[in-house]
Amino acid sequence: MAIHFESLDSDIMGRVGKLSVGTKMIKTPALLPVINPHLQLITPLEMKNRGVEAIITNAYIFNQSMQYRDRALAEGLHSVLDFDGVIMTDSGSFQLSVYGKVSVSNLETLSFQRDIQSDIWVPLDIPTSPSADRATAERDLVITMERLREAKETFGNDAPIAAPVQGGIYGDLRERAGRETGELGFTFCPIGAVVPLMEGYRYRELVQVVMAVKRTLPRSACVHLFGAGHPAMFALATAMGCDLFDSAAYAIYAKNARYLTPHGSYKVDELVELPCACDICRSYTPDELKNSKEQERLLALHNLYVTLAEIARIRQAISDGTLWELVDERCRSHPQLLSGYRELLNYGESLEEYDRASKRRFFFRGNESCQRTEVIRYQRQISRFRLGGTVLITFDHRIQGGFSDTLLFKPPFGPYPRELKETFPIGQSEIPDWDEAMVRQGCKGIRTLIATHPENRVVISCPPGWLPVVRSELPDVEVYE
Amino acid sequence: MAIHFESLDSDIMGRVGKLSVGTKMIKTPALLPVINPHLQLITPLEMKNRGVEAIITNAYIFNQSMQYRDRALAEGLHSVLDFDGVIMTDSGSFQLSVYGKVSVSNLETLSFQRDIQSDIWVPLDIPTSPSADRATAERDLVITMERLREAKETFGNDAPIAAPVQGGIYGDLRERAGRETGELGFTFCPIGAVVPLMEGYRYRELVQVVMAVKRTLPRSACVHLFGAGHPAMFALATAMGCDLFDSAAYAIYAKNARYLTPHGSYKVDELVELPCACDICRSYTPDELKNSKEQERLLALHNLYVTLAEIARIRQAISDGTLWELVDERCRSHPQLLSGYRELLNYGESLEEYDRASKRRFFFRGNESCQRTEVIRYQRQISRFRLGGTVLITFDHRIQGGFSDTLLFKPPFGPYPRELKETFPIGQSEIPDWDEAMVRQGCKGIRTLIATHPENRVVISCPPGWLPVVRSELPDVEVYE
Repeated sequence: MAIHFESLDSDIMGRVGKLSVGTKMIKTPALLPVINPHLQLITPLEMKNRGVEAIITNAYIFNQSMQYRDRALAEGLHSVLDFDGVIMTDSGSFQLSVYGKVSVSNLETLSFQRDIQSDIWVPLDIPTSPSADRATAERDLVITMERLREAKETFGNDAPIAAPVQGGIYGDLRERAGRETGELGFTFCPIGAVVPLMEGYRYRELVQVVMAVKRTLPRSACVHLFGAGHPAMFALATAMGCDLFDSAAYAIYAKNARYLTPHGSYKVDELVELPCACDICRSYTPDELKNSKEQERLLALHNLYVTLAEIARIRQAISDGTLWELVDERCRSHPQLLSGYRELLNYGESLEEYDRASKRRFFFRGNESCQRTEVIRYQRQISRFRLGGTVLITFDHRIQGGFSDTLLFKPPFGPYPRELKETFPIGQSEIPDWDEAMVRQGCKGIRTLIATHPENRVVISCPPGWLPVVRSELPDVEVYE
Repeated sequence: MAIHFESLDSDIMGRVGKLSVGTKMIKTPALLPVINPHLQLITPLEMKNRGVEAIITNAYIFNQSMQYRDRALAEGLHSVLDFDGVIMTDSGSFQLSVYGKVSVSNLETLSFQRDIQSDIWVPLDIPTSPSADRATAERDLVITMERLREAKETFGNDAPIAAPVQGGIYGDLRERAGRETGELGFTFCPIGAVVPLMEGYRYRELVQVVMAVKRTLPRSACVHLFGAGHPAMFALATAMGCDLFDSAAYAIYAKNARYLTPHGSYKVDELVELPCACDICRSYTPDELKNSKEQERLLALHNLYVTLAEIARIRQAISDGTLWELVDERCRSHPQLLSGYRELLNYGESLEEYDRASKRRFFFRGNESCQRTEVIRYQRQISRFRLGGTVLITFDHRIQGGFSDTLLFKPPFGPYPRELKETFPIGQSEIPDWDEAMVRQGCKGIRTLIATHPENRVVISCPPGWLPVVRSELPDVEVYE
């Protein structure tokens, strides 16, 4: 029954992987739709027919339910929910975060999850609110870690137990939680208590929290971003190495007459069109949807389809090595997501260590693309160029005699020898008409070249239009028009 | 039978409109799928059931067809194609551009189009290749204009004749063509011979051509972008005031085993996932699609669904006043589209004259957002502020005594009085954490304030982090930390 995770393909820190629980296997990144047994707008079986491999439900609700408790204990969850894929159960921690207390202990909920035959069990961790002070966050974390240890000791190393990583908004606590969770040998680690950050559009802080956890968690751990959420932020989370999302959003939004898209959401009343390719949106008019008695179910189906499509798009992007482009696309859909994206780019140096060597392409999408890992990596390689005594860097590919070596120039990367012309990223990158930001970034590549080759004399040949930028970036370098 | 066009709602130069031909009416922007009578992967009736209101077919094919010619003349096009919406016919100009000649005259094709009961007829205009020299482009244009005049004279003012605007890549010829077409009283004006620009990803030139035509064409003319095409560029074209697209792409891409998305396309073999919400993509696995005997039809359906969804999204964006945001999203999907978008932003001053006064919101999506029409318009308004003798502009909303007026500061707009706090765009704009580009743009607003209020003394209060930027943009202004 142990949980195993294997990364099959990766891009930035994101991966396409295989999560196994016993004999069951699901592909990641994956969305686990949240199932409320009392309110099944879309049944788990219908979901399975649309490609859903795993769902999540709440053991606490089953435990408290007159209707379901005994049935779940007798038949098991899979029979009750009519779903033979992976079923994960939450413990009641969510209720703890909302009501402040629950009528179950850590070992009780874990035993109950085992007894109803859940595939992945969650201990009763303490979700620390982002508004909690440091002392509270630390105290909560101590309890969570005790309960994780208790779970391991009681149920053994092979029990399919998730280990939530807490610590509030305190980076060092999240790092400590990540490290200790890994040391305990857990392979499946949800990042907990980030819902308030997401609900408050605090994506910059979300990035800081997730990156703190990832810094210390073993790379081999499968990371579940608990309570995420809106498909607009899946790409950003995946780029940081989150593998699983669980979401009640498809249903909650539908209940509130809201229409999800991967770039934001609408109230149904705001729609003059149905801007989506899904079967619901191509079969109904906006007025029919607004007036339908089945509106909630129709919206839930639409919401689920666009969410599953986003997961598919993320996996395709990882396979292509175009995840940065998807992150860029999605994160511009809200200014606070853009802040989160820009924050992630600040971690470029660490991300570069994870990033893969070659990709389908590099499409420049705006100034933010100058900070992509591919640019950082390329500019690191520049220090290893072997060059003769005098080096010409030519912006317009005009060749002049009298130099030991001639390098070409492609922003935002910088100088390159002809031999690299067909290799990634020089050969597979497309850029728009040059702009100032990318030329400045390319000049940083020249600066690296000069700093790492102090024995060489470097001369730049540059069209007059770019002279001011080049001179301001490289004031001490010989530049000719 | 005359063609009428009415704009109901607008954003930038784009509009949601009503195009009437006789008693038939369609909503714009609209996609007219291209129907080849010999090859109907999806029938016009199926399209109608998915919301298609108008289609386009080729009169020349009907004219040359043993199978269809007499039937079309006897029953009319609507019966032959089983479609009671608007049917537009092309004349054979496309064949002219490919084969260099056609066996039909201008009046012959127009008479034939009338006789088969087409709703919109196209004269035999001369599509000038973008590679043609100026003399050729001018000679071609003279012939096209003669044929338009001939069409008017022969069939009268009420005939539903489209007037293609030609002129190659020569801005002055396109302007002349637009002016003369308008003077002849045409209300439906396709922009012709841009397919090679689109096929070559020459979007910067496409923007120049379309903007030249729009400069002289009456605003009331319905503009059809002939041969467009890929849904990734519909938003850009709409922002320039294009109302109709016709596209064989859904079918041609399907025939070539290609999968359309509004952000680019894939070869089917490249797909490891089906990254879309449509019924095909949520019902089939990638392997099933790759191996299906019905692959071409399945792909054509998918391609059509995503194209129709994009039209719906554009209309929704115009209704919301968020078309700039959609243009930004789509144009970043290819570096050459980004060049086209940046070129369009260079027309900001002219676009501002068309743009509507108030919008749902302004979301900042990157440095390009600094050049949006809303920023240009806001900064024009600054000259009309009525101010006392001494003016404090405060970046951090700290108020100080001793000033006649205090203005707050919101980049990229600039200074604003408290009374504008709730009005568009100050009140409805969301920006990420401040960045240098937006603060520089906001400083331009301060520069306008100072230039248009020479009698006032302006002082800026600014946090230390932004001092260098403010001092470099406004070297002569008093700045306090």
